[in-house]
Amino acid sequence: MDETQELENRFDQLKKDLKENNLQDFRENFLEMHVYEQSQFYEELDEDERYLVYTYLSPKELANMFDVLEEDNENIQDYLSEMRPNYASEMLAQMYTDNAVDLLNTLDKKQMGKYLSLMSQEDAAEIKELLHYEDETAGAIMTTEFVSIVANQTVRSAMYVLKRVAKTAETIYYTYVVDQENRLVGVISLRDLIIRDDDEIIVDILNERVISVHVGDDQEDVAQTFRDYDFLALPVTDYEDHLLGIVTVDDIIDVIDEEATSDYSGLAGVNVEEVHENPAKAAFKRLPWLITLLFLGMATASLINRYEALVSQASILAAFITLITGTAGNAGTQSLAVAVRRLAFNDDKAKNYLKTIFSEVLTGLVTGIVTGATIFVIVWVWKANPILGFIIGMAMMCAITVANLAGSLIPMLMEKLGFDPAVASGPFITTLSDLTSVLIYFNIASLFMGYFIG
Amino acid sequence: MDETQELENRFDQLKKDLKENNLQDFRENFLEMHVYEQSQFYEELDEDERYLVYTYLSPKELANMFDVLEEDNENIQDYLSEMRPNYASEMLAQMYTDNAVDLLNTLDKKQMGKYLSLMSQEDAAEIKELLHYEDETAGAIMTTEFVSIVANQTVRSAMYVLKRVAKTAETIYYTYVVDQENRLVGVISLRDLIIRDDDEIIVDILNERVISVHVGDDQEDVAQTFRDYDFLALPVTDYEDHLLGIVTVDDIIDVIDEEATSDYSGLAGVNVEEVHENPAKAAFKRLPWLITLLFLGMATASLINRYEALVSQASILAAFITLITGTAGNAGTQSLAVAVRRLAFNDDKAKNYLKTIFSEVLTGLVTGIVTGATIFVIVWVWKANPILGFIIGMAMMCAITVANLAGSLIPMLMEKLGFDPAVASGPFITTLSDLTSVLIYFNIASLFMGYFIG
Repeated sequence: MDETQELENRFDQLKKDLKENNLQDFRENFLEMHVYEQSQFYEELDEDERYLVYTYLSPKELANMFDVLEEDNENIQDYLSEMRPNYASEMLAQMYTDNAVDLLNTLDKKQMGKYLSLMSQEDAAEIKELLHYEDETAGAIMTTEFVSIVANQTVRSAMYVLKRVAKTAETIYYTYVVDQENRLVGVISLRDLIIRDDDEIIVDILNERVISVHVGDDQEDVAQTFRDYDFLALPVTDYEDHLLGIVTVDDIIDVIDEEATSDYSGLAGVNVEEVHENPAKAAFKRLPWLITLLFLGMATASLINRYEALVSQASILAAFITLITGTAGNAGTQSLAVAVRRLAFNDDKAKNYLKTIFSEVLTGLVTGIVTGATIFVIVWVWKANPILGFIIGMAMMCAITVANLAGSLIPMLMEKLGFDPAVASGPFITTLSDLTSVLIYFNIASLFMGYFIG
Repeated sequence: MDETQELENRFDQLKKDLKENNLQDFRENFLEMHVYEQSQFYEELDEDERYLVYTYLSPKELANMFDVLEEDNENIQDYLSEMRPNYASEMLAQMYTDNAVDLLNTLDKKQMGKYLSLMSQEDAAEIKELLHYEDETAGAIMTTEFVSIVANQTVRSAMYVLKRVAKTAETIYYTYVVDQENRLVGVISLRDLIIRDDDEIIVDILNERVISVHVGDDQEDVAQTFRDYDFLALPVTDYEDHLLGIVTVDDIIDVIDEEATSDYSGLAGVNVEEVHENPAKAAFKRLPWLITLLFLGMATASLINRYEALVSQASILAAFITLITGTAGNAGTQSLAVAVRRLAFNDDKAKNYLKTIFSEVLTGLVTGIVTGATIFVIVWVWKANPILGFIIGMAMMCAITVANLAGSLIPMLMEKLGFDPAVASGPFITTLSDLTSVLIYFNIASLFMGYFIG
């Protein structure tokens, strides 16, 4: 906690330096901080203070900080438009290419064009190359600031190359070895380079079994490779093995967070990133799901309505509607969450579709039998009516089994149809299972009505 | 895909080598693979084949592979007990300490004691030191294989130290600088060491503002520091700044995955890691939640039962029970997911409790008014009965608002009481909101019953 306090004191001092035009002190104290802390400070400033920052720092110095600003920050467009266009474009050029691309992607085409036209041709070309990769692929998250060397040189000369590029490369801890046509042939870690003798030849010591990803690979698959192999960076190639860029582990952490958030949001039927919204805005983002499901729920209501005669004959039946739909909904949600997870992590999906569904239905049957038997006994004792107990228990068992089937089947269908299975939300499954549960319940009740009333 | 095929072919060749006793070929091909691939191969073997592996590989070679085996692998105890005890304990000693500790923690006390007693005193001491840290803290995930140096030496001599320890340290990309009492005074990255002149003195070039975590810090907080600062490793200190170990980014990725899985599991009320269970086992893991919620659902059933007279007077009321409970449950799930997320990521929790609840209730009110108005119109048109429409719409609005309140209040209560807010599951909220919704619905219906029937 006192670390936070210390940081706050630093920030206060920096603001004072800004206000009193202590250029030298400001620069010294600001540049001493970690870029993340710099970005925290910058986000606290008002517009006038930021104007001063732009005159106190070089585009390169500001770029280092912008490299770590959250890319979904809505203020970024304001920040850029506050700067002189030349300053802004120079800063963009000085950022790591992948970050500059993320940032430019938040702008409209016109703005983007303006900044690109103000850059040197070389910088603009590098950025443009990355701009056209599809979202959420390896190409979209890779950077082009990597180290590559050819194989027929000594460790000494490789180290010399490394020293030269160490300031601009995003990571120097892996050096990629390419042939004359820029095809990836191997990798050598800085650790290996340091251990080896200066006179050894790279070709003798490189690791030829280099793990790489393709530029069009889904970012989730890239993240999985990082998880499996514990790399700090991975090379990205085209389909002819030409080295195009690298993905670094810090970007992968962002990907993992993003995927986790979207799975979590999907399950709840709400975008949980809406943290700083005002209530009205938040409400209007949640309403589409609620209203859509309301109409699905209307189907359930009109179904119950069709059994009005049954309900008015035996109004006790109404008491158990919520219990049955609720419990089946809970079981369906469990089944859904397991199925979505299984789809996300299972490589041999295709083979296991039927097996998974079968095993999920069996799980539903077992949970259904136990839950059904429990409620059978409860209702029998409570209402002293074994037939009512049997109806409720039977309906419960069938409803749970069907809900489990739906919970596992629907994400698979989504995937087959090319959607993200994580979009199959819990609220959707519970609302759908309300419908099937009511259908099952009243059909079973009608069947045994004779015994029940008699 | 052909990469997977290539790997399968390799595995087949390796198995053939094993069977035909081609020791040399096996070793060459096996050791050429990445440790992750080695572990994939190893997990495919049967017991007889594994016996051969233990005779073909040194404990150190096997240790490299065991470093990346999934720690929650249930077979690990079998693997260890297959090996000669001396071989197993030597292998454990050769693993990175943090991984050896994770693995030993899966054994019972007796087994653990056996392996520790067979190790050298030094190795055993190192492991024992880590064994006593509390689960899910920085201490539990740190390793002691780091590089530390004192400040009054040249870059050249520091590089010499690095070369010497490069083979055993878990990462050499950060070197930590300590004083005579082993207190952390700075850090220098390998990148900086390489850029600098060989004759510069460490004390002049080290970064004194070193970010560290305390040994008792929660692993989630450590992960957040990694996210913010994009480090590859972080030093862990005690409360007097003595350097105890480091946490590396690959372990943090595991932590992030673990937390995401547990949040997701919590929301669905099921452990989604149950991937390879058989249906009966899976069912018995899901049943406790279902049965608990069944009893909560019984409260709702008996509440509706108390309104039996009302329902038999106007059985149309039964048709809308599911619609109201379902929609309120959906809104409550949305609210819950947002609240849990907010608690996980918001540092200034304490201050915002009331504000968050207030804003969530307002959100509920807005969604409630819109949804309520929608259903009011639908029911009016459908049943040509504005009073019924009003009852349903009014109940819907109140039920949604209350569900939103519950969804945001309950995780906060959980946190206040010292529980993980992520345990407040969606099924729990929907079942609870069933109860409140029914209460609201039938009270409103009773109030307006006179007008309705009249």
